[in-house]
Amino acid sequence: MSSNAFGKLLTVTTFGESHGPAIGCVVDGCPPGLVIAPEDFRADLDRRATGKSRYTSQRHEADDVEILSGVYEGRTAGTPIALLIRNTDARSKDYNELADTFRPGHADYTYWQKYGIRDPRGGGRSSARETTMRVAAAVIAKKWLAEKFGVRVRGHLAQIGELVPRLPPDGTIDWGAVEGNPFFWPDAAMVKELEDYVNALRKSGDSVGARVTVIADGVPPGWGEPIYGKLDGELAAALMSINAVKGVEIGAGFAAITQKGSEHRDEITPQGFLSNHAGGILGGISTGQQIVASIALKPTSSILIPGRSVNMAGASVEVVTKGRHDPCVGIRATPIAEAMVALVLMDQALRHRAQCGDVGEVLPRVPGADSG
Amino acid sequence: MSSNAFGKLLTVTTFGESHGPAIGCVVDGCPPGLVIAPEDFRADLDRRATGKSRYTSQRHEADDVEILSGVYEGRTAGTPIALLIRNTDARSKDYNELADTFRPGHADYTYWQKYGIRDPRGGGRSSARETTMRVAAAVIAKKWLAEKFGVRVRGHLAQIGELVPRLPPDGTIDWGAVEGNPFFWPDAAMVKELEDYVNALRKSGDSVGARVTVIADGVPPGWGEPIYGKLDGELAAALMSINAVKGVEIGAGFAAITQKGSEHRDEITPQGFLSNHAGGILGGISTGQQIVASIALKPTSSILIPGRSVNMAGASVEVVTKGRHDPCVGIRATPIAEAMVALVLMDQALRHRAQCGDVGEVLPRVPGADSG
Amino acid sequence: MSSNAFGKLLTVTTFGESHGPAIGCVVDGCPPGLVIAPEDFRADLDRRATGKSRYTSQRHEADDVEILSGVYEGRTAGTPIALLIRNTDARSKDYNELADTFRPGHADYTYWQKYGIRDPRGGGRSSARETTMRVAAAVIAKKWLAEKFGVRVRGHLAQIGELVPRLPPDGTIDWGAVEGNPFFWPDAAMVKELEDYVNALRKSGDSVGARVTVIADGVPPGWGEPIYGKLDGELAAALMSINAVKGVEIGAGFAAITQKGSEHRDEITPQGFLSNHAGGILGGISTGQQIVASIALKPTSSILIPGRSVNMAGASVEVVTKGRHDPCVGIRATPIAEAMVALVLMDQALRHRAQCGDVGEVLPRVPGADSG
Amino acid sequence: MSSNAFGKLLTVTTFGESHGPAIGCVVDGCPPGLVIAPEDFRADLDRRATGKSRYTSQRHEADDVEILSGVYEGRTAGTPIALLIRNTDARSKDYNELADTFRPGHADYTYWQKYGIRDPRGGGRSSARETTMRVAAAVIAKKWLAEKFGVRVRGHLAQIGELVPRLPPDGTIDWGAVEGNPFFWPDAAMVKELEDYVNALRKSGDSVGARVTVIADGVPPGWGEPIYGKLDGELAAALMSINAVKGVEIGAGFAAITQKGSEHRDEITPQGFLSNHAGGILGGISTGQQIVASIALKPTSSILIPGRSVNMAGASVEVVTKGRHDPCVGIRATPIAEAMVALVLMDQALRHRAQCGDVGEVLPRVPGADSG
Repeated sequence: MSSNAFGKLLTVTTFGESHGPAIGCVVDGCPPGLVIAPEDFRADLDRRATGKSRYTSQRHEADDVEILSGVYEGRTAGTPIALLIRNTDARSKDYNELADTFRPGHADYTYWQKYGIRDPRGGGRSSARETTMRVAAAVIAKKWLAEKFGVRVRGHLAQIGELVPRLPPDGTIDWGAVEGNPFFWPDAAMVKELEDYVNALRKSGDSVGARVTVIADGVPPGWGEPIYGKLDGELAAALMSINAVKGVEIGAGFAAITQKGSEHRDEITPQGFLSNHAGGILGGISTGQQIVASIALKPTSSILIPGRSVNMAGASVEVVTKGRHDPCVGIRATPIAEAMVALVLMDQALRHRAQCGDVGEVLPRVPGADSG
Repeated sequence: MSSNAFGKLLTVTTFGESHGPAIGCVVDGCPPGLVIAPEDFRADLDRRATGKSRYTSQRHEADDVEILSGVYEGRTAGTPIALLIRNTDARSKDYNELADTFRPGHADYTYWQKYGIRDPRGGGRSSARETTMRVAAAVIAKKWLAEKFGVRVRGHLAQIGELVPRLPPDGTIDWGAVEGNPFFWPDAAMVKELEDYVNALRKSGDSVGARVTVIADGVPPGWGEPIYGKLDGELAAALMSINAVKGVEIGAGFAAITQKGSEHRDEITPQGFLSNHAGGILGGISTGQQIVASIALKPTSSILIPGRSVNMAGASVEVVTKGRHDPCVGIRATPIAEAMVALVLMDQALRHRAQCGDVGEVLPRVPGADSG
Repeated sequence: MSSNAFGKLLTVTTFGESHGPAIGCVVDGCPPGLVIAPEDFRADLDRRATGKSRYTSQRHEADDVEILSGVYEGRTAGTPIALLIRNTDARSKDYNELADTFRPGHADYTYWQKYGIRDPRGGGRSSARETTMRVAAAVIAKKWLAEKFGVRVRGHLAQIGELVPRLPPDGTIDWGAVEGNPFFWPDAAMVKELEDYVNALRKSGDSVGARVTVIADGVPPGWGEPIYGKLDGELAAALMSINAVKGVEIGAGFAAITQKGSEHRDEITPQGFLSNHAGGILGGISTGQQIVASIALKPTSSILIPGRSVNMAGASVEVVTKGRHDPCVGIRATPIAEAMVALVLMDQALRHRAQCGDVGEVLPRVPGADSG
Repeated sequence: MSSNAFGKLLTVTTFGESHGPAIGCVVDGCPPGLVIAPEDFRADLDRRATGKSRYTSQRHEADDVEILSGVYEGRTAGTPIALLIRNTDARSKDYNELADTFRPGHADYTYWQKYGIRDPRGGGRSSARETTMRVAAAVIAKKWLAEKFGVRVRGHLAQIGELVPRLPPDGTIDWGAVEGNPFFWPDAAMVKELEDYVNALRKSGDSVGARVTVIADGVPPGWGEPIYGKLDGELAAALMSINAVKGVEIGAGFAAITQKGSEHRDEITPQGFLSNHAGGILGGISTGQQIVASIALKPTSSILIPGRSVNMAGASVEVVTKGRHDPCVGIRATPIAEAMVALVLMDQALRHRAQCGDVGEVLPRVPGADSG
């Protein structure tokens, strides 16, 4: 499979460079009959959009999605759904002076090493602009998961630099609060503190990393495939493939290192699991609990503080970024991370249906019941 | 592709249950002409073997590899290499009393939810026994990578519970020390402390988590493919697919959350990179630096301390594990993690050669040189 | 996906050389719960076996299938099913004198060109021995298709040299007759004629080509995927991959060249289709009629009549085959062709269920009924 | 992999319906550095275009290709190449009256059975309009194959109804003649006869089938992979996936049925092969001779002669096609068949380079030379 494609049965192929004429994707394998319209893409694309708030990059893109195929009379037809977004605000001139220089911490250097091509315009294919199409494709996945299974996939910022939200002891997320501020922050009382923090960062010309957590509710038990098709393995690949991600956790994640087995294992009672350190996945297969995944995002390297690098002639140069960029790229990664989780879940749902039949999707097995 | 297969061009398909007649794998896509013999598998299988030391599970398997195909007169023929290991020490009776019970923290419950089948014999397909074949397959990958590129893939235990090795300030690993103790521990002076720690754990009937770090030296720049075929994305999938892994980090990993951009970005000089927070990967493509990946392993749930669960009749039961298991499964995960990194690297090396030709493998581009 | 693997959701990976220690396969993606036992493989392997009659090659293999994994208490567990057959009658010495020579019409030359390896033992990986595992894997597919959908996949010899069976005007096949003679010949009255024909061929030291036709009854409408996943496209690949096959037809096949549109198109009435020139497939998707596919098999090149070739030193040599071979390899291709059709159908059935749900499999849409 | 995608390393994903806003494709895996421009697509798209001559369908499409991504400063960048063609002459009203009717011999019925969706506009996704993008994608493959290996892929019409071109005894094709008439006919002296034949057909309101042969010159030995990745198997799938194709032959094809082994096998001398009944492929791997493949195309079912069918209410109806269609769809299939052969060859070339290295592509092994 193409390295620009993702998913076994729900396959998303994306294309386009940050400053080329357009970006787009082809979503194949979607079941027929799902109602979908161009306006369905608006909300999540706005959530992801740069320029949404003054806390993120100042690039302004309309991001109007054109549905080129696969939808007939408002419903998916079972054939490939092509989505296209024209790039309208790609100021390539911002990048001209970097045409000859490798920006530290960027893919400039590695793409050049791999392909012998140096596309200086905003990172070309390696730009986070590509993630727009992941979010667009996942609008379809989220809708199908919600309508067919009642699954909801939602994310929030869980850390920015040293700042951590104060959550209630049981970890419940106030999703209304998350959507009520430009940081996807679950602790409404801290928003002013975040604003000051990010403003200070921007002023300093520096950037900082972040943690995003995605939670999927309503996933039935049984999704995921053994060994190399594990649900957690595919979530890890999907999330690590997002620009700037340097780490992925499922459930307790790295905290499991210092846990004892007697603490980590989630005991089971006739009423259900007593905890969820597993993050809803055992042996690569969903347990029926919440799926919980977290990612670490690095601080962007495109900052106003000069840094050492080399140019294509091999000479030492000083690099200062002047384009439009984010003090914390992690903020707008939230809807992207949701998107990747939703795409993985829908793909696994279809794969489960293929091997095990439709019955599993409406009727999880209940120990002690006849269906076992 | 089958969920029991892994890799796009170097494809490893594994099969077998923990207590079935045999486990095995098919390695396809290996270049012809590589010298390989049954005894080449011995070292790494011994490193992984349960029963290697009294600090890990007491199951004793000979793990003799039979090469069934793909090797002619001592050299790979380009055709699929099938490897087989008979299970000789599978004491299924140990598990009989669990036949009706879901062990907390195990895949018993989720496999039953998915397939409606309850194979109580040591976890069946979900057992870590499967990883034996990953290690065997990776012997081929390690050998090819070493002979063709001088790449070395080595791992060490980096944390067990609260214990962390004391490393020199520059992070250099003493690989001789790592191989000189049964914990793959890079700090020889702490081995006695570890022994006491694990013995105490075993005595307490409990288990603890661990961190393993894998480092690949000698990887040329340019390996990895954009977007969904990223080197870090595939490493994340490969490592997360190992039993008990709950988190994956590349380079700085979760520490990147609190880093500033001015700190995290690895500056470049004509003499090379000045740091390696990226873990040797930018934009999903290798930089030519060390590839560094770490994983978090949960404490095994198979412990002597009773836990609550349910049986297949839905009734509440108390579970106590009596089979042969590890107080810290993370210890023997070291060669397994190495194996997954090696398999990903060889697959990406072949993919790079397919698209970009052989020249990239011997001659990284040098800024300022004519080859650019 | 490995080039030694086949199928998207029901994936069969085969391994082994003709004269190595064993051949085998891994069948992944099979739904759980299918009853399967070693003796289920006997009938079709016997049908395929060389040595079945004096009209085919004289190699005698027991072909006892060992189930290594994926079956628990007599039922498929949803995990990969590994099947192994030991090679017991591989007389490599028959081939020693050919070690240095390229046999005309064989893969000796091309494998050497590709891999630089010359395995003279009976064709190595390119031997038709590999097809044993296709037949074994398809036993599982045939059983699942029959139990779940009532699908039957059966083949017969449709031509050998110039001899063609006399069929009734409506083309009905007498399957009892087919299984009642060693030629899979549907015209019982001609069997003596065939015996004489093949005996004369053997005596002459030459060989001849053949045509095999496979018919699948009971396939519901809707199987097959658009464009590159078409049912006929995948049948073509599957059938052309069989040793010695040089042509594939669906329905009318090459006869369609001289047909008029008014003749070829299969008209539809409320009672059903009026003909089946399409061979049961339109637009790559099954119509609900019989699936009909035919293949052309070349005459084997391993004959007693000397032929010109070159050896590895580049010198001109005369080649005479002395090993055990068939005067018409097409005869025993019948069960192999059935196997490939069955594997394609089961894979497509699973893919259809994934995208369109279970309902399609039991309830084809009926024009005019509410379900439309 | 998506069923609307094709190829393992050179992957082409197509999208779009005949009467939707646009059709397009994404070509991934192309090596970097290939010079490509929008005007490169003109020649082959014109060769395929409907409306090219009065002997084919009268639909007029500008078919201007827009390159949306993957090409930077005139060269492929190694990233996915997206091509887009707007549909400008899609007169959907022609089809309105068929909205409720299944056209015999079309995919209307099977798509409806599969998806429950009835898109009456010119066949929707199943229309041959989709093949435009195959031809466009293959322009890239043809260029790369020609520049890197000197491979040329060319096709010609080899039969239409009962008419067969008179070729010289050695089978040499006069490619100038082929391109000099609107039928891709290799026998210039017969063109007037063909014109009369097709005109009479059109007047009669009927259609007829055809045979197309594709020949690839310059393919080095060694391309193709064993067993399920065979070059001939993949050619069969690729060619059978073209609309209206009912049969595929490699080399002698179905004529091999009546050949003797002593006739069919291509003898080898130090000067090379003495014949090419194999069509340039042995054991699924190229021999270094011409690759020769032929296809049978059915007569189109869209004819002016009324035919029986049913409508969606299940009632009997009479269908007469009034849209724009071809009396012989086989004519314009020639460039499409070339396209599929070129795409398969480039994909296999990359796969061969991945496993066996670059050396094979410039230096076929010569028996007796040191390189053996």
